[in-house]
Amino acid sequence: MAQDDKKQIAFVLYPGLTPLDLIGPLQVLAPLSRIDPSFEAVVVARTKDPLPTDSVIGLVPSHTFDEVPAPFAIIVPGGGQPTLAAAGDKVLLDYVASADATTEMTMSVCTGALILAAAGLLDGRHATTHWAYVDILELLGANPMKARWVEDGKYLTAAGVSAGIDGGLHLAQRLVGDDAAGLIKLGLEYDPDPPLAPINWDPAFTDAVRPLWRAPLREVLELHPHLAR
Amino acid sequence: MAQDDKKQIAFVLYPGLTPLDLIGPLQVLAPLSRIDPSFEAVVVARTKDPLPTDSVIGLVPSHTFDEVPAPFAIIVPGGGQPTLAAAGDKVLLDYVASADATTEMTMSVCTGALILAAAGLLDGRHATTHWAYVDILELLGANPMKARWVEDGKYLTAAGVSAGIDGGLHLAQRLVGDDAAGLIKLGLEYDPDPPLAPINWDPAFTDAVRPLWRAPLREVLELHPHLAR
Repeated sequence: MAQDDKKQIAFVLYPGLTPLDLIGPLQVLAPLSRIDPSFEAVVVARTKDPLPTDSVIGLVPSHTFDEVPAPFAIIVPGGGQPTLAAAGDKVLLDYVASADATTEMTMSVCTGALILAAAGLLDGRHATTHWAYVDILELLGANPMKARWVEDGKYLTAAGVSAGIDGGLHLAQRLVGDDAAGLIKLGLEYDPDPPLAPINWDPAFTDAVRPLWRAPLREVLELHPHLAR
Repeated sequence: MAQDDKKQIAFVLYPGLTPLDLIGPLQVLAPLSRIDPSFEAVVVARTKDPLPTDSVIGLVPSHTFDEVPAPFAIIVPGGGQPTLAAAGDKVLLDYVASADATTEMTMSVCTGALILAAAGLLDGRHATTHWAYVDILELLGANPMKARWVEDGKYLTAAGVSAGIDGGLHLAQRLVGDDAAGLIKLGLEYDPDPPLAPINWDPAFTDAVRPLWRAPLREVLELHPHLAR
């Protein structure tokens, strides 16, 4: 079977995720196959049907979970309320946990870390997530850090949304080295020049605006009643 | 009809594009509707069927071209060889040109600029594109510049792939102001920290590696025989 010959990098797709969380690292890691044909990027979901995202676009996977039982790496993207729901989806959690048993790298982007944590993979580990959801990551047993990405053993967690590009490029660098990863960076012309002032990380400001993104903790506890201890 | 009430921001989807070219600015501009409900992001294609990209994921539009005849803005993503083919697709070019007749902003990402140029919208205008395709942009009548994004009148062209995030954020800033655009930036945690050395823009290097991305000019001329003059 293909997965015996290939090092599959499986991007986990579920309904309602934030598209850039998946597409950012996909765009960085899919070209690995052109550098080393033993790599193969795949997008996996429960079925091959198109799935909605939290934006006005649908995404279509390339494989089912069943078709990719033993990937080399999995990457779990995040999102808002639908990702919290996904963190309570037994089929998804079972796939993430069973895939993780064979991976050499398990990565999350944004609140995808909450899914890894809900699958029991981040207990006591250093990890990061979207800034507005850090307390939930802690509730789920991880040891949150503020960083663009965090590595703890084979677990690589990236911060919110766009951080999946940086985290993915770091992974590419580890897998194929600086020169090849530099060509991927050049191909994507990833030489960012963000407009506007740098993000204001003053907690007085981020605490004030957090409710714009955060599902109320009450709803999270309803999804994860075991946390209300 | 909806488009009479809404300022529609139409992302143009066609087969084989590079997903991040579309998803980057979509992720930045779709939240405008939460700031000003008169904005509405839509993803338009010839039909509503899922379309392949140049990566291992399909994308599903929200609307057909016919359903969005008079958008406030259009955004045309790019890619490699399939984008050069799209630049010769009369249905696509007709949509881009007729939509442009009503837009207040017409944007491209990466080689999407070649589609704008093929539609006759960039004649003599300053514009940018993916670094490996600048000569084709010039052949198609534009005046290429090396910049993260270029504005010339209502035409906003962004450089390769990831530059659509920066260009999109610049557009958001223009449409809703610094404070609101800053919240979008915070939501996406767009505080990039790229690994690896900065891109080496020495022409001796980029000339040497350009063939990795560039469709041969011969093929481009076959697609656009009117250029072989």
